[in-house]
Amino acid sequence: MRHTGSSSPLQTLFLDSGDIAAMVRRKGLDACFEGLEAALRADFLRWNEFDKSARVARYGPQGVIELMPIADASTYGFKYVNGHPGNTRLGLPTVSACGVLASMRTGVPELLSELTLTTALRTAATSAMAARILARPGSRSMALIGNGAQAEFQAQAFRSLLGLRELRLYDIDPAATAKLQRNLAGSGLRLQVCGSVREAVRGADIVTTLTAHNGHATVLRADMLEPGMHVNAVGGDSPGKTELEPAALRRGPVFVEFEPQTRVEGELQQLPPDFPATELWTVLAGLAPGRGDARQITLFDSVGFALEDYSALRFMRDLARELGAGRPVRLVPDMADPKDLYSCLALPASVQAPVAPLEELLQ
Amino acid sequence: MRHTGSSSPLQTLFLDSGDIAAMVRRKGLDACFEGLEAALRADFLRWNEFDKSARVARYGPQGVIELMPIADASTYGFKYVNGHPGNTRLGLPTVSACGVLASMRTGVPELLSELTLTTALRTAATSAMAARILARPGSRSMALIGNGAQAEFQAQAFRSLLGLRELRLYDIDPAATAKLQRNLAGSGLRLQVCGSVREAVRGADIVTTLTAHNGHATVLRADMLEPGMHVNAVGGDSPGKTELEPAALRRGPVFVEFEPQTRVEGELQQLPPDFPATELWTVLAGLAPGRGDARQITLFDSVGFALEDYSALRFMRDLARELGAGRPVRLVPDMADPKDLYSCLALPASVQAPVAPLEELLQ
Repeated sequence: MRHTGSSSPLQTLFLDSGDIAAMVRRKGLDACFEGLEAALRADFLRWNEFDKSARVARYGPQGVIELMPIADASTYGFKYVNGHPGNTRLGLPTVSACGVLASMRTGVPELLSELTLTTALRTAATSAMAARILARPGSRSMALIGNGAQAEFQAQAFRSLLGLRELRLYDIDPAATAKLQRNLAGSGLRLQVCGSVREAVRGADIVTTLTAHNGHATVLRADMLEPGMHVNAVGGDSPGKTELEPAALRRGPVFVEFEPQTRVEGELQQLPPDFPATELWTVLAGLAPGRGDARQITLFDSVGFALEDYSALRFMRDLARELGAGRPVRLVPDMADPKDLYSCLALPASVQAPVAPLEELLQ
Repeated sequence: MRHTGSSSPLQTLFLDSGDIAAMVRRKGLDACFEGLEAALRADFLRWNEFDKSARVARYGPQGVIELMPIADASTYGFKYVNGHPGNTRLGLPTVSACGVLASMRTGVPELLSELTLTTALRTAATSAMAARILARPGSRSMALIGNGAQAEFQAQAFRSLLGLRELRLYDIDPAATAKLQRNLAGSGLRLQVCGSVREAVRGADIVTTLTAHNGHATVLRADMLEPGMHVNAVGGDSPGKTELEPAALRRGPVFVEFEPQTRVEGELQQLPPDFPATELWTVLAGLAPGRGDARQITLFDSVGFALEDYSALRFMRDLARELGAGRPVRLVPDMADPKDLYSCLALPASVQAPVAPLEELLQ
């Protein structure tokens, strides 16, 4: 990390994965989750100020690549992100991401950042923000179904923001669970390894599903859910990729980020288009009810929305400024005269070849 | 510029504006235009292999920010680009851009690059590629209406790829024309400053319109066009922004990049939706006629299409490898186990705060 020093309006702050990791170490994980949740909450509460759209996706046989743009009157943000479940077989991460924050007034990118670590942090902070308003007060235990790359982030965000004390772990891959146990050894969380989804879910206050495989899986069945549970369904996040038995969604009110996107990408894709769903921001704003009572089952059908990346980019930009992290890069050349882009090439006259006759060139 | 050395599949090659300028200086402007045109031509000739869409635009009072994605079976590319005509008043460029080239198979970004200088080069190379097949053979003179940031690039691409010898210059801002004269002083091009659009156009073989202001302007009138001219209309490139009198488009066949996009953004937006237009790739592929005879007027209604950025990113990636330019950055952390993103934070146990009771946290 280097200090950016004085910045020109033509400089873009660049943060790579190493910068983000170092920033989180210096600031502390809890302070980062708190800051991220504050940024998310502030942006969700001004929901109607944003020009929102579903993401633009390209599907290939191995996975999907998406662009997620969003803007308010002053700031534009977007994320590039892929999802390739088979990448782990190649030793590659299933998700990598980067994004930009730019001024709507000038269009010059202010921040260009990795969003791989940042997405993991913001997804977990969003889940915890939803659970703080939807889960039963006093929730202390969470079943974590799927112990892959996102699992520790969810565990830590719920510990940090909800006071979670116990995790009930299940993954079809015992190595994933072992990795999670190693990583959370010093966290203060009690970890209980379970032999099945049903065993992990039994008695938990919160159930988080985080599986990565494609297709309509039935990871969580309706009959596993107990009164008062909050379900945080994170793994189903694209067309054809779901984790819950459709009947599970009928056990209680369903909350979503941006309804038009979740209808296509979320667990909701399994249900009729008029199945009721409440956008989370309306609950945060006090415009719609959240949990009715301590015995109701609540479900957050999370797919990840562009606004969350906007909030996360904003948080990381401010944190980088606070810590003097990152480095300036130039996505536009230094121009004394903004109409004089050409002279930024600083070409010597000798580089320019003599004029050749067209006939010769067209041979 | 630094050599990238051996590269990991998790490293992304980063090229900033300084890298691109240095690469063009080392390779030579003519060689760059030749290489760009070859890349463009190769990609236009496999048009149907690409998953194409119109760009995703956000309009604000001061300008527009766009995302332009495209992909074939193996490679995905996108560009972030803004257009803010009033930026010059703030000493900022009207356009700044960056983009990514990624593997469709893994989604990991291979190249992250500025696209400000690169867009200027590819726009000019695309215009010259179109003119090589549409302009009258033996074309030697070009009227350049609008002498702003893109003007020298167009002049040099036409000199390099068509053997252009004479430029007839007009701009409402004499300082822009003076800047262009300075920049092209050693180019071998004869420069004729004209007092009006009509004077500049008179007798020219090719007419390039490159004005930047918003709104439906009538920069080029139908009655200025002479038999055999080729019109390269570049400035009109978004809804509500045109340069040609609609009647000018009726003077000869109109050629476009990607028809659905040009109908909305190009000069064509002024004409009925069934007004005939030919996609340039079909002419390059020999599937549709280009120019009929030496007296026909041809018009290329250029708006800039995502495929051109894909070709340009591909060219710059290969050139950077050839020259050892740019530097590796990490948009994903170094992961021994792709399921173990969390340990990339390398958090000390002491960073993790002790568990606080939920009640305290919810105060």
